[in-house]
Amino acid sequence: MQPRRVLITGAGGRIGRALVGSLRDRYQLRLHFHRVVPAELTTFEHVVADIAQYDEVESMMRGIDAVVHLAADPRVTAPWESVLPNNIIGTYNVFEAARRSGVRKIVFASTNHVMGMYDRDRMWPVYSWLPPRPDSLYGVSKAFGELLGRYYSDRFGMSVICLRIGWFLPEPSDEIARWMWLSPRDCAQIVERALETDLLYGVFYAISGNSSRHWDITDTMEKLGYRPEDDAERYFIE
Amino acid sequence: MQPRRVLITGAGGRIGRALVGSLRDRYQLRLHFHRVVPAELTTFEHVVADIAQYDEVESMMRGIDAVVHLAADPRVTAPWESVLPNNIIGTYNVFEAARRSGVRKIVFASTNHVMGMYDRDRMWPVYSWLPPRPDSLYGVSKAFGELLGRYYSDRFGMSVICLRIGWFLPEPSDEIARWMWLSPRDCAQIVERALETDLLYGVFYAISGNSSRHWDITDTMEKLGYRPEDDAERYFIE
Repeated sequence: MQPRRVLITGAGGRIGRALVGSLRDRYQLRLHFHRVVPAELTTFEHVVADIAQYDEVESMMRGIDAVVHLAADPRVTAPWESVLPNNIIGTYNVFEAARRSGVRKIVFASTNHVMGMYDRDRMWPVYSWLPPRPDSLYGVSKAFGELLGRYYSDRFGMSVICLRIGWFLPEPSDEIARWMWLSPRDCAQIVERALETDLLYGVFYAISGNSSRHWDITDTMEKLGYRPEDDAERYFIE
Repeated sequence: MQPRRVLITGAGGRIGRALVGSLRDRYQLRLHFHRVVPAELTTFEHVVADIAQYDEVESMMRGIDAVVHLAADPRVTAPWESVLPNNIIGTYNVFEAARRSGVRKIVFASTNHVMGMYDRDRMWPVYSWLPPRPDSLYGVSKAFGELLGRYYSDRFGMSVICLRIGWFLPEPSDEIARWMWLSPRDCAQIVERALETDLLYGVFYAISGNSSRHWDITDTMEKLGYRPEDDAERYFIE
């Protein structure tokens, strides 16, 4: 069953704002914001809530078919004092409230930092099925979300798709973006595929079809049907 | 460098009490208790602390070489309200306080419930390197501890050995114990091996050499040098 009513948490962030523009034609959106409602998004159905507070999260779920869970402290350097409420407790609250509200699909924004130690050690290519080696408490918190998703999927039959989002930018700006770039339209495509798939669980790298990539996206292509349209290389060849 | 001064957290639990008797001759022990100090253990150096409180945890670490971290809510059915402070926050506090105090070794009591969904689905044998599939929030919390240990090991060079402890019992009591039993002396041996190894990180099943086991202990034997002395089967053949 394809979802129609989609809740985007953290819709005020960089990725959230871009996704709203891409998904608005296909889904009926409800947007969650941490504090501020961006002026250009006030016309959407929206709610302001602290995802660390369970009751506030549950009240966002009414009538929702699927959640795109982006809300988190996105800083790689985030300290435990922020990672704990925003990324760990917040993600538990979203999964649990979704379950109790009958939501059957969660797309979880994970990160390449779950595997960052492979990159530090240049153990390339990195495959999504290798054991997590987080490079930060932020990476640990996202790996926790992937694990929790596995549990909710195995235990309650919910579909939880985890996307290890690379570097989301309008255009690749430097040598690192050259291999880890995720373009806005490729991001939108992956999230849509994740929303539409019947898969019950999966962890996928989410980057564009960069010729210089070090992370394997074969699974993203084979299992989600992702067909990247962008390649950072084009911006470097003059 | 072999550890001499060892802190055991949760030393009042079933496994903790048994370990004290086995490790006391080899190491200088400091025992942590959650609330009550068992009468027979008052002669040991000890401290009562809530591991969910960082400051209380850090004060336990002074002069310690290694931590055997057992303290947790051990119930498979433990709700989030207990798992969060006792297993997630508590484990973070122990790892972080150990790091800040210069402790170079942690033996972390994990559990087979990190992989419980393989058992539910009878996907045997289960190898320790398969992706975690927790069967409970308890299992998720222990998988979190394994992940956090990976981070502390990769990032700070600490040795973190995670033991997926099976069913710790004086004697195997029924058909399930027949394959998942961990005898007291085999438990003591594995913990000692984990304390003495130079390995920087590892996740190992910790059960006796049960002929009917479904979990692979090859890694435990090869990488830790574990040689089980017990086999539950002996209790069933008459």
